Parts: sequence; C-alpha cells; structure tokens
Amino acid sequence: MSDATPDAYEPTERTVPTRSRERASYDRALVHSLLDEAYVCHLGFIRDGAPVVLPTLCARVEDRVYVHGSTGSRPLRMASGAEAGMPVCLTVTHVDGLVLARSAFHHSLNYRSLMIHGAARQVTDRDEKLTALDAMVEAVVPGRARDSRPADARELAATAVLRIDLAEVSAKIRSGPPNDDPEDTGLPYWTGVVPVVTSYGTPEPAPDLDPSIGIPEYLRRL
Amino acid sequence: MSDATPDAYEPTERTVPTRSRERASYDRALVHSLLDEAYVCHLGFIRDGAPVVLPTLCARVEDRVYVHGSTGSRPLRMASGAEAGMPVCLTVTHVDGLVLARSAFHHSLNYRSLMIHGAARQVTDRDEKLTALDAMVEAVVPGRARDSRPADARELAATAVLRIDLAEVSAKIRSGPPNDDPEDTGLPYWTGVVPVVTSYGTPEPAPDLDPSIGIPEYLRRL
Repeated sequence: MSDATPDAYEPTERTVPTRSRERASYDRALVHSLLDEAYVCHLGFIRDGAPVVLPTLCARVEDRVYVHGSTGSRPLRMASGAEAGMPVCLTVTHVDGLVLARSAFHHSLNYRSLMIHGAARQVTDRDEKLTALDAMVEAVVPGRARDSRPADARELAATAVLRIDLAEVSAKIRSGPPNDDPEDTGLPYWTGVVPVVTSYGTPEPAPDLDPSIGIPEYLRRL
Repeated sequence: MSDATPDAYEPTERTVPTRSRERASYDRALVHSLLDEAYVCHLGFIRDGAPVVLPTLCARVEDRVYVHGSTGSRPLRMASGAEAGMPVCLTVTHVDGLVLARSAFHHSLNYRSLMIHGAARQVTDRDEKLTALDAMVEAVVPGRARDSRPADARELAATAVLRIDLAEVSAKIRSGPPNDDPEDTGLPYWTGVVPVVTSYGTPEPAPDLDPSIGIPEYLRRL
C-alpha cells in the first residue's frame, strides 16, 4: 500500500480498524517505543478451539518480540509442537487518562495500544535465546541483566522462549480532551481528563538480603 | 469438585493451571474484587481462525461482566450474529511489583490476574443495557454516572453491549519477595520487590469547560 515505507509497517486487512481509523498508526519508531515502554503484554492464542488471553512478560529486540515460559506450560508446548508456529495476537496497552465527557456516551480513555498479529515460534538457537532472556530482564528494569546471575544450563533447558516477528502490527492512540457533541456544551457537568500515572514505590529488600548491599543506581533511576 | 461451594467458582480443566497451581483461586469475593478494581480488560476472540486480543472497558454487575462498543465494530457484529454467543476469554491484570531475584531465572512480577472463559452474548433487554452502560461509567469513576448526560435513544441504538456470565473463572496471584534458590543467597546482588503504583494526576478541565464548574467531589476522592 502507498503509505508503507521502510519507516512503517504495511497495513493489512486486519490491522486497519473498522472504527476510528484516524487513531491507527503503523509508524515503526512509534510501535517500537510503545513496546519498549511495556514489560507486560496480553498474548492471545487458540486452545481446543477457544481463545485464551495470557498476561506475560515481553521484550523487543529489533523487529522481534519475545515471550517466555516454562517448557511445561501449555502455550509453550503448543508453539514448540507447531511447525509453522502458533497463531497469536500480542497486545500491549498503556492507559494515560480517564476521559470524562458531558455525555455518558462520549466517555473514553486516553491510551496507546499496540496489536501484533503473527505466529509464535520457539527459539532454538542458544545465542538468540540468551539475548531474548537478557532483554526480558532489561525490559523490567534497565540495567538489571548484568546485576543478576545469568541462567545456567538447567534453567535454560527449563525455559522456552517464543519469538513473534513484527510484520503485521498497528498502534492505536487516543489523546486529548473529550469529544462532546456541540449541543451538550451547556450541560452543568465537569468535563476533562484525569491523568493515569504509573510509578514505582520505594524498593523493598528481600528479608534475606545482606544489609551491606544498598539499592543499586539503576533502581534509584526508576 | 469438592472445593466448589457457593462462595467459589467451580474449577474446570482450563481454569486449573498446569504450573504454579498454588497461585490459583476460585474465590468469588476475590474474583469480584479484582474485576471491580479494573476498568480495562483484554478481550480475546477468534476472527477468521486467528486470535484477536482487544483492550476494552469492562464492568461487573453481580455474576456478569459487560463490555461495549459500536454496533459497527467487528467483535460486536460477530457476537450479535452468533446464536450461542461468541467464545471469548476476558483477562484482567493488576501489576503490583517488580520481583528482582538474585538469579535472572527467578525474576518475576507480583500481580493479581483473572481469566474468564465463556461466551459473549449481545444484550437486547433495554433495562439490562442501561444498567450495564451505567456500570461501565461507574467502573471508570465511581459517582460519575449520575453526573453526566445518560445515553439518548440514538446513542443507545449505536451502542452494542455484550454480556459474559461469570462461571468458568479463575484468579491467579503472586505476592511477596523473590524465591531465590538457597545456593544463590550469598550472591552480591540486591534482591527484593519494587512496588508498582497506579495513581491519578490532577484533573485537566476541557478547554470549553465553564470555569464556574469546579472539580466534583467524586474526582477529589480518586
């Protein structure tokens, strides 16, 4: 399609929304930034003919997204058994605000979300697996991967990593004030946006932490 | 099953996890509280044989969960066309903390999540539809439904509401400090939990708000 460039993902039938098309974006840098801001995604797959939506950690490396799990878990077993990969939809959602319109109908949220359609394939290459696992620790706390013990051979064998290539992907964004109908302007209701803020509390040391080990700099930065 | 009582949902094959079974709960009051704390869910369904995961507003009324959307949107059209409802998985996730273990392997999140399996059916009863729409506004901001203009006939006709009955549902919770292997205790890495906190910023009035309308009490409470 004409708006597909190296800087954007190509829109497809299922990444063009039926509603609010002006909120959709295929911009590669935007998609990457929304993924990098997240460490939790919702992974959808089909099991016994029914949909399943699993919250799970995720991390991006270039144009790939990784999720992981125990080799014994159901989705990981399903993906590893499928030659062509397991069809998935990986969704990331950031909620930025509550949009309070004068009419109940125009209530909404400000959000930035992302939907990736594709196939999840098990990573078998050892180096790629190590890179993905590092990226997943770094996605939770940047700087943490080199300040923890890397997985040993037993742990690596017990962990399955799935890769989803970024190809069929779209972002959707709503921002700004409510969109009230002009005829509602005079109604006596407060209208505006309540920002939703996610932040971090004071780190809570584990009960068995050596008290001489202080809070590392990468945690103070959070 | 023996642990199913009126105070708990009956476990089924797909609500008993293969891993970390001790984290699963079927307690009705817990399930309700996790739903009531949320206003966004991730709704999974199948479209053209592939999974789709849609972030959307949700609200609970007794043992039912409601989502809504434009009558023209794809999932709403699909559910309204299906006599037996559309198979869905509705997942709610609250992230409470980053769990930083000494080993990369034991990194985790503290979370409270909820997975509902069932069928989404279109609500055709007018009173039930009005109750559901009120509940959805109240889920975002308690107290808001009566301080906004209710939907008129045109808006009601343009909005489809789907109901999912709470029957096959499980919660999953992880809390507390990291679970490091005993042999890792001496490693020189900080270990513990970083709380994740979601809060609200100062309400931002819409540009066209009558300045004599102050911030309502139910927003100050947030």
